[in-house]
Amino acid sequence: MRNSIGTSVILTLFGESHGEAVGAVLDGLAPGIEVDEKFIALKLAERRPSGPADTARREPDEFRIISGVFNGMTTGAPLCILIPNVNVRSDDYAANAGLPRPSHADFTAHIKYDGFEDWRGGGHFSGRITAAIVAAGAILLKALEDKGVSILTHIIDCAGITDEDGFEEAVLKARADGDSVGGIVRTEVTGLEAGLGEPWFDSLEGALAKAVFAIGGVKGIEFGGGFEMTRKRGSQVNDQFCVEEGCIRTSTNYSGGINGGISNGMPVVFNTAVKPTPSISVPLKSVNLETGAEAELVTTGRHDPAIVRRIGPVITAVAAIVISDMMALRHGTGYLASK
Amino acid sequence: MRNSIGTSVILTLFGESHGEAVGAVLDGLAPGIEVDEKFIALKLAERRPSGPADTARREPDEFRIISGVFNGMTTGAPLCILIPNVNVRSDDYAANAGLPRPSHADFTAHIKYDGFEDWRGGGHFSGRITAAIVAAGAILLKALEDKGVSILTHIIDCAGITDEDGFEEAVLKARADGDSVGGIVRTEVTGLEAGLGEPWFDSLEGALAKAVFAIGGVKGIEFGGGFEMTRKRGSQVNDQFCVEEGCIRTSTNYSGGINGGISNGMPVVFNTAVKPTPSISVPLKSVNLETGAEAELVTTGRHDPAIVRRIGPVITAVAAIVISDMMALRHGTGYLASK
Amino acid sequence: MRNSIGTSVILTLFGESHGEAVGAVLDGLAPGIEVDEKFIALKLAERRPSGPADTARREPDEFRIISGVFNGMTTGAPLCILIPNVNVRSDDYAANAGLPRPSHADFTAHIKYDGFEDWRGGGHFSGRITAAIVAAGAILLKALEDKGVSILTHIIDCAGITDEDGFEEAVLKARADGDSVGGIVRTEVTGLEAGLGEPWFDSLEGALAKAVFAIGGVKGIEFGGGFEMTRKRGSQVNDQFCVEEGCIRTSTNYSGGINGGISNGMPVVFNTAVKPTPSISVPLKSVNLETGAEAELVTTGRHDPAIVRRIGPVITAVAAIVISDMMALRHGTGYLASK
Amino acid sequence: MRNSIGTSVILTLFGESHGEAVGAVLDGLAPGIEVDEKFIALKLAERRPSGPADTARREPDEFRIISGVFNGMTTGAPLCILIPNVNVRSDDYAANAGLPRPSHADFTAHIKYDGFEDWRGGGHFSGRITAAIVAAGAILLKALEDKGVSILTHIIDCAGITDEDGFEEAVLKARADGDSVGGIVRTEVTGLEAGLGEPWFDSLEGALAKAVFAIGGVKGIEFGGGFEMTRKRGSQVNDQFCVEEGCIRTSTNYSGGINGGISNGMPVVFNTAVKPTPSISVPLKSVNLETGAEAELVTTGRHDPAIVRRIGPVITAVAAIVISDMMALRHGTGYLASK
Repeated sequence: MRNSIGTSVILTLFGESHGEAVGAVLDGLAPGIEVDEKFIALKLAERRPSGPADTARREPDEFRIISGVFNGMTTGAPLCILIPNVNVRSDDYAANAGLPRPSHADFTAHIKYDGFEDWRGGGHFSGRITAAIVAAGAILLKALEDKGVSILTHIIDCAGITDEDGFEEAVLKARADGDSVGGIVRTEVTGLEAGLGEPWFDSLEGALAKAVFAIGGVKGIEFGGGFEMTRKRGSQVNDQFCVEEGCIRTSTNYSGGINGGISNGMPVVFNTAVKPTPSISVPLKSVNLETGAEAELVTTGRHDPAIVRRIGPVITAVAAIVISDMMALRHGTGYLASK
Repeated sequence: MRNSIGTSVILTLFGESHGEAVGAVLDGLAPGIEVDEKFIALKLAERRPSGPADTARREPDEFRIISGVFNGMTTGAPLCILIPNVNVRSDDYAANAGLPRPSHADFTAHIKYDGFEDWRGGGHFSGRITAAIVAAGAILLKALEDKGVSILTHIIDCAGITDEDGFEEAVLKARADGDSVGGIVRTEVTGLEAGLGEPWFDSLEGALAKAVFAIGGVKGIEFGGGFEMTRKRGSQVNDQFCVEEGCIRTSTNYSGGINGGISNGMPVVFNTAVKPTPSISVPLKSVNLETGAEAELVTTGRHDPAIVRRIGPVITAVAAIVISDMMALRHGTGYLASK
Repeated sequence: MRNSIGTSVILTLFGESHGEAVGAVLDGLAPGIEVDEKFIALKLAERRPSGPADTARREPDEFRIISGVFNGMTTGAPLCILIPNVNVRSDDYAANAGLPRPSHADFTAHIKYDGFEDWRGGGHFSGRITAAIVAAGAILLKALEDKGVSILTHIIDCAGITDEDGFEEAVLKARADGDSVGGIVRTEVTGLEAGLGEPWFDSLEGALAKAVFAIGGVKGIEFGGGFEMTRKRGSQVNDQFCVEEGCIRTSTNYSGGINGGISNGMPVVFNTAVKPTPSISVPLKSVNLETGAEAELVTTGRHDPAIVRRIGPVITAVAAIVISDMMALRHGTGYLASK
Repeated sequence: MRNSIGTSVILTLFGESHGEAVGAVLDGLAPGIEVDEKFIALKLAERRPSGPADTARREPDEFRIISGVFNGMTTGAPLCILIPNVNVRSDDYAANAGLPRPSHADFTAHIKYDGFEDWRGGGHFSGRITAAIVAAGAILLKALEDKGVSILTHIIDCAGITDEDGFEEAVLKARADGDSVGGIVRTEVTGLEAGLGEPWFDSLEGALAKAVFAIGGVKGIEFGGGFEMTRKRGSQVNDQFCVEEGCIRTSTNYSGGINGGISNGMPVVFNTAVKPTPSISVPLKSVNLETGAEAELVTTGRHDPAIVRRIGPVITAVAAIVISDMMALRHGTGYLASK
């Protein structure tokens, strides 16, 4: 699968940070989904760097839908969306060519791709590719909304600060030091039917985790009570059943909406741990890949001192893709069509 | 995929808690892997309940290899392994039929399978199926060892206690109260080559996470510095490079051996959050699935008050399967053959 | 995928000719399909050698359903079916060990599996494994019948003879000469909805072809007018539309019920070319795999002088699996449940 | 999978006849394959209509590689190739909108895609998409050549004529009558190693067949002796072994280079049946999809009176993709890198 995900609704990614464009192919879409280009643009805007706390690389993200849409509706044929790269400055990277940035993918890309990787700006590993994820996800996010499913991701912890009023300050302070910070974001999926997911390897937790770990910088995920719950007793965190307005619900949601890998009708809730951005201007030790000698590296280029804000729309997008896939598999390929 | 995982080496699970047997099919194995039945039995023994802190259901786990092995070596054809169920007591469950256990898969299985699920002992959702995972994983664990790769999982936190001398006491105390506890286990993969995994959806983190979340009771996973690292700055947790005995290494391992989804040659380290076992004898609220009325439930049957000990060999097994798959994909189908 | 096929309904095969058993796992079944063991036995009987024109190896084909069925209905969890091998005579093969039979899989298995293959009776390549296909297919064949879909396969050519009264004589004559014959079988799927299949790689033709070519001895497949139609003009073989009882139909069926890879509502019709069975007792040239020396081979053992009769139920079974998969993908996982 | 094919090397198609562009994503390529744009252009030229016997729609096929290539070599990241549509005349189709062309995909597309299909020029079903297949295939064809593997496809029968000097005349004669003809093409793969393919569902025959049936107009495929061989006896068509220059070979090749689904080292040979092009200007009966009334249809637009010539490079391309995938799976992801 590699750069693809999904069984019935399948996303494939391509593109590099400093190439002509990044893009995605969405295959297996229901015919008859309304494609709202304004909504896509809105979602791209949510991901786009905008304030002083974000990278100085500002891309217009003007996307083009190459295929799969006719008269404003999906046809059911593969939808290819292309987002040209405009604001590229490869020279920023030339100075450090051959010096892998610590905790970045430079070194592993070099090993995996045998020295043939496009190293400019992180190449195919760049966060730039997430623009294509967000654009593709927006199409499904809209279709899910029509089915009453909402997905929202927000920051709950930034640089150890849990009061949202302090997030920007913490990031700017790190930036002033040429440093970076991480954080934790929470995703909540509401309105989701019970019965999605599989008992073993395609559990809803596993499918969401696999999709979320694709995003650079993610180092952990927990559902419902997560790690904290491991210190509790079963009697404290078992979600007891109740009947609400004729529906079977649970009075608490330590399970994060999932039992045995399958959604139970309660909100699906998960937290994602985002590490501090590896690209910082504090001098760090690297090794010259050609000479094998240790060397000091000062990362230049334009970077985010924290991606915790910009990662939200990306996690929301992959969650939309995973859930759409499971709904299409359960209810049939035409299920997500607009009414 | 559902009950299967893998691209080049593929595991498929089947079986129910109270059916004739549980089992697995391993397809895509290299021909010429030595199959050491004693090693498989040993791994099954590590998972098997044994002490006072484990369930009273004691299965002999006498496995039979149905296919794919000839003269003690894998043939390359699919290997089917069968583990009969012997010690079954379905009556324990009859009393509570129709009353889903809180935080267990009973309710979601009922919704997903439209009332046709085999509900006896958790059916296909039962931890019993993990015996088949362990048996299949043992074959690959041995093959990986021959390549210098070791995988070990141990408890780092049980019921909030981090001193391993206190684990059993905490579990027995919970059992005495008819209650259960959770914990955190750490898995370390050493000797792994750099270059395994894919940049986007088949990241090593994503693949391991998907496999680990298949196991009942898992609610979180974090790699390297994980959630704790989100509160640090980049300058504190970036893994700086160094040269050791001619090899490029990092002087710390906050990345948990993975950058950009790809192994970097350092140990792969991840923590798994295991919730308290849902089956407890403390009375809890349920809802009768036939009448829709709220009801009190006291779970009987034989259960583990904590699966944190028994889950270790299962996580090790799925990690072995995931890593073997990636190595076979990278180096070819015959790579894991014994010398 | 290797020994598996399908996206929503997935079949996995295992077993060897002279091993303990052959078997199959069917995953992704709708919960609530009635499992009629008598019907399975009937389909197995249709495949079983019975007359003087068939192999002398007579297996009782007593199958056991290991999992996935509860109270006579599928649960939705993977269904494993096991068919023990009883009538095994490996000694027949010992004499010719190391001498690959011409046009058989002995040589390619040896190369592919690096000498580790179970060569007894063809091992995993044996037609014996098709018993598992037929058993698994029978479950879906029944479910399809409930949806009005019938699949039938019959011989249209045996040893060049097209009059069915001459088939057995032709086979017996070949057997008397220690030789074998081939033939052509036609499969007709009636009652199939329009709209199944995909434009490019999962065309209905491609999916059926892939499944049919899995069966040993198949060397060709053609749909509708097939090879003969290549000599006609478009005006002769274009299937013109008409309206019949309010439905859009075509007045001819040169397309074999499929256009652009997608079913059009007319019967799906395809012919399968089955080569003469390679195992004959006429002396043939082989090469000793150990010494590399040319050698003469007289195949002993018990073989069919023609598999053209016994292949029918197998083709029907794989067609049922392919079509069920496509229907489940289109209409949802629960679609094939019995009413 | 739908518009994708492959396990280790994966092709995904997108685009419509009258959209902005057609294209393909090739994922799982070895890093370090030389990408020869002139060779790609050459292969596209072989497929391009050129003479009086081809369609009047002449596209320049100026492709752009969007990603996955750096300094003229594959990086290992997904390679996206885009071929803009330039010469589009949708008006040709407007007159017949709602009237499906007999034996074309118009009707099945309409049913499958619920009326949302892009019907202009056949939309996603158009032979135009095969330009993307040829471009993608060219990259692998070149890599295979470096490994000593050649793939060639040539016409052996056109309109029932087997003398190649008569092919063009037969086509022009049909065109003069506003009619079309079909034919048979033969593909030969030489230099292929023994051991590629799988015993059951990923047989080399099955994988090639699935890929070839994706191409519009294909109605049959046969390997080696194919349909003709069904009328022979085993003693006549069993390929006896011999030793040639120290290698085990067979003295005949009725098996078409494949036994038990696996290549045996002899040339892989298969014939593909191509039906007469359905788009002809002879009046035919159709049915108005909106009114349900029968109607006469005269297809206008620019069409090939025979695709038998232009299909050759497409079959060669899909064969290259299938074989590359199997080689990468067997020998590892880096195997096809240029030296």
